[in-house]
Amino acid sequence: MDYKRIDAVDIEFLVSILAKDRVFTGKEISSDFSHDELGGISKMPDVLVEVLTTKEVSIIMEYAYNNRIPVVVRGSGTGLVGASVPIYGGIMINMAKMNKIIEIDEENLTLTLEPGVLLMEISEFVEEYDLFYPPDPGEKSATIAGNINTNAGGMRAVKYGVTRDYIRGLELVLPNGEIFNVGGKVVKNSSGYSIKDLICGSEGTLAIVTKVILKLIPLPPLAISLLVPFPNLDMAISTVPKIVKSKAAPTAIEFMQREVILAAEEYLGKKFPDNSSDAYLLLTFDGNSKEDIEKAYEKVANICIEEGALDVFIADTDERKDAVWSARGVFLEAVKASTTDMDECDVVVPRNKVAEFIKYTDELQKVFHIRIRSFGHAGDGNLHVYILKDDLTDKEWEQKRKEVFEAMYSKSRELKGLVSGEHGIGFAKKSYMLEQYGPEYLKLMENIKLAFDPKNILNPGKVCQ
Amino acid sequence: MDYKRIDAVDIEFLVSILAKDRVFTGKEISSDFSHDELGGISKMPDVLVEVLTTKEVSIIMEYAYNNRIPVVVRGSGTGLVGASVPIYGGIMINMAKMNKIIEIDEENLTLTLEPGVLLMEISEFVEEYDLFYPPDPGEKSATIAGNINTNAGGMRAVKYGVTRDYIRGLELVLPNGEIFNVGGKVVKNSSGYSIKDLICGSEGTLAIVTKVILKLIPLPPLAISLLVPFPNLDMAISTVPKIVKSKAAPTAIEFMQREVILAAEEYLGKKFPDNSSDAYLLLTFDGNSKEDIEKAYEKVANICIEEGALDVFIADTDERKDAVWSARGVFLEAVKASTTDMDECDVVVPRNKVAEFIKYTDELQKVFHIRIRSFGHAGDGNLHVYILKDDLTDKEWEQKRKEVFEAMYSKSRELKGLVSGEHGIGFAKKSYMLEQYGPEYLKLMENIKLAFDPKNILNPGKVCQ
Repeated sequence: MDYKRIDAVDIEFLVSILAKDRVFTGKEISSDFSHDELGGISKMPDVLVEVLTTKEVSIIMEYAYNNRIPVVVRGSGTGLVGASVPIYGGIMINMAKMNKIIEIDEENLTLTLEPGVLLMEISEFVEEYDLFYPPDPGEKSATIAGNINTNAGGMRAVKYGVTRDYIRGLELVLPNGEIFNVGGKVVKNSSGYSIKDLICGSEGTLAIVTKVILKLIPLPPLAISLLVPFPNLDMAISTVPKIVKSKAAPTAIEFMQREVILAAEEYLGKKFPDNSSDAYLLLTFDGNSKEDIEKAYEKVANICIEEGALDVFIADTDERKDAVWSARGVFLEAVKASTTDMDECDVVVPRNKVAEFIKYTDELQKVFHIRIRSFGHAGDGNLHVYILKDDLTDKEWEQKRKEVFEAMYSKSRELKGLVSGEHGIGFAKKSYMLEQYGPEYLKLMENIKLAFDPKNILNPGKVCQ
Repeated sequence: MDYKRIDAVDIEFLVSILAKDRVFTGKEISSDFSHDELGGISKMPDVLVEVLTTKEVSIIMEYAYNNRIPVVVRGSGTGLVGASVPIYGGIMINMAKMNKIIEIDEENLTLTLEPGVLLMEISEFVEEYDLFYPPDPGEKSATIAGNINTNAGGMRAVKYGVTRDYIRGLELVLPNGEIFNVGGKVVKNSSGYSIKDLICGSEGTLAIVTKVILKLIPLPPLAISLLVPFPNLDMAISTVPKIVKSKAAPTAIEFMQREVILAAEEYLGKKFPDNSSDAYLLLTFDGNSKEDIEKAYEKVANICIEEGALDVFIADTDERKDAVWSARGVFLEAVKASTTDMDECDVVVPRNKVAEFIKYTDELQKVFHIRIRSFGHAGDGNLHVYILKDDLTDKEWEQKRKEVFEAMYSKSRELKGLVSGEHGIGFAKKSYMLEQYGPEYLKLMENIKLAFDPKNILNPGKVCQ
């Protein structure tokens, strides 16, 4: 693509808007900004800027648009598919310092935020008001705008849905610098095409989120977790559709295997409540009364025992819940620390196909002689499967990674799954989405991209391009 | 716009695909197909066809696309803004006979349907399985595809959200005849731009919905309704933000006035449980245990009494609930039957601005000497305000209608509301959406329209055009 290269005049312009201490070039830019959490895709921006206001974002975009300079926006950089990597160089806008909580509105049950507020700050803040922001992705240091741009789901999607379901309104800066407000504090909206829902999951390619209005709900006063050991993973996961069918409506149903638990114990330097079994389900139930929750979890505990569970541990104190969930929270880091390099696949399949998919990935370990670790959201069919490089050479790794991924995504298609449940397509998963949808479907997506960004300057080369 | 006029060759083609008994022209077409529920916008299609399969829809669209013939799709025709009126003539596709329930999947909690299944059929069907499809718009004879195309909300949006929140997957026919599947039985999806969410609320302008996969949830075993009389509407509605703030989480909070109740009594020929007060709130609570529900409604009943409610009637039997909700269900028809003609405004405002908006419409009655009736979803800020023609001349009606609407939509903007909460923009509300969003925002919507439909043949002249 034919972009203008950043030169001294451009830098001068950016300094005139932001002052010198918020414009970085060359060695002033940490290499962290060249990649996201996984690091497999990497490129430095020509210039990195820190913004504090919507107005600044708008002025920069107008300039970039007029001069045909590529722009990539970045939050915490916790992505896994290279969506925030500036593959064409140009300007990187760091939104991390637009991180104020603007307003909590208890009459409308909304929370208004700047885009750089971290997920962990949101839950802490709203729970003081007895309110609840249900989406709960594992990576709590992600920004809210990052979560919106991937439509992150997390643990509680089983009962409460995903990020999309909690976005009431957005302030956006378009590629040409225009500022639009979509949605608002309103509960319903049928006023034209839902731009808001198109931005959600668009991975920074259509517009820049500069303000967010979230929906909150009353905080359920009680929650309890069950840790259920099974003799093997197949038995554990095969139990999940029966739990769903029982209508007990758990908040979360996670699955995990001993190897991942051991890695987490080592990473955290602290013991998990139990590591003697091969596989576990971890469930949460929340509600307004103890009776309600007990009724639900007793039903589920009985189903698990009937299906061959070895025991049912109840975590009803904060301390016990923390022991389990803090381990769950570091699985990704723990697996990453156990190997030299890794890559991930976050397919989503119908809930009753999870067992079949996991069994298949297990077989791939043997076929390809490669370590594969998985954990994830059994209750909503969204798996996080990690293939580990260990002591493979770079060349072997590239080859095996490609073959294993091809096999996994092809299996997912066979099971009527989709490429990504919550991590997105970014740069790394483009070819698999193309295989899933075909060129006509991608052409439609590209047409939508050009409807927002006719000069193709905002995060080009991502998702459908 | 430069469209091909339907001629004998086109009719011959349609007959070759559908056979003679599913292709209608001239006087064979009932005038019902020239308008929707309100009738203010009216135009006959040149040819009306009945389809039974996705393949038929695809062949017709490919033909229409190649020949540049405008196409409008119609379900039950229960819309209120002219979205299904063929303002450029051409082909009307009647989807009403694609009305089979295809599959209920209890392991994935999904329901797969053809687009013409009626809302009333869905709730009846799934409740047999102890499952629940929460969206509950007043018009139960609307089709599911109609509900998807307006993103209908209904009574239970306060607790359960709107139609959008329950769409898992769609099969679509694009304007050029291509068939795409978006989403699926999966719970999460971050695989490219959400075409599914763009179709939801697009009022038949982007693609034709030919199959639907809905999300179901467990049916709450218990529900109770409260009918709460207040001395006046202002007191009733001012109580709502306090209820929301109390975190009691009712399923529905509707408001109604005595005049509308009297009209419903007359229309139904049966008595409402109480009609002695000027204004009412009607609330529902649902849940798993009696204790849970009682705790919630007692809290709310106390708030209502503190705020000046005259009494609190509890409807806990099916009979009593039916007496109240069947009246609520006919409000639109009852108001319509009480006058010569009417038009409606379904603005949505933040929940704590409803009282101010309703007070304002009340003043408009006096200023413009016109009857205005309103009812609607106090709990989610979505109002249904009807202005009645009564014995005005056509000319006076046109003039007053315009002035009253201008005043109402301008007030809504002032309160940070939006043009439509659930009825859509269609043809009738285009100018008000333009005033709200401005030309640049509409241009973006039109670019999106052209991304799907470069020849602009599918329901042209609607929403943003």
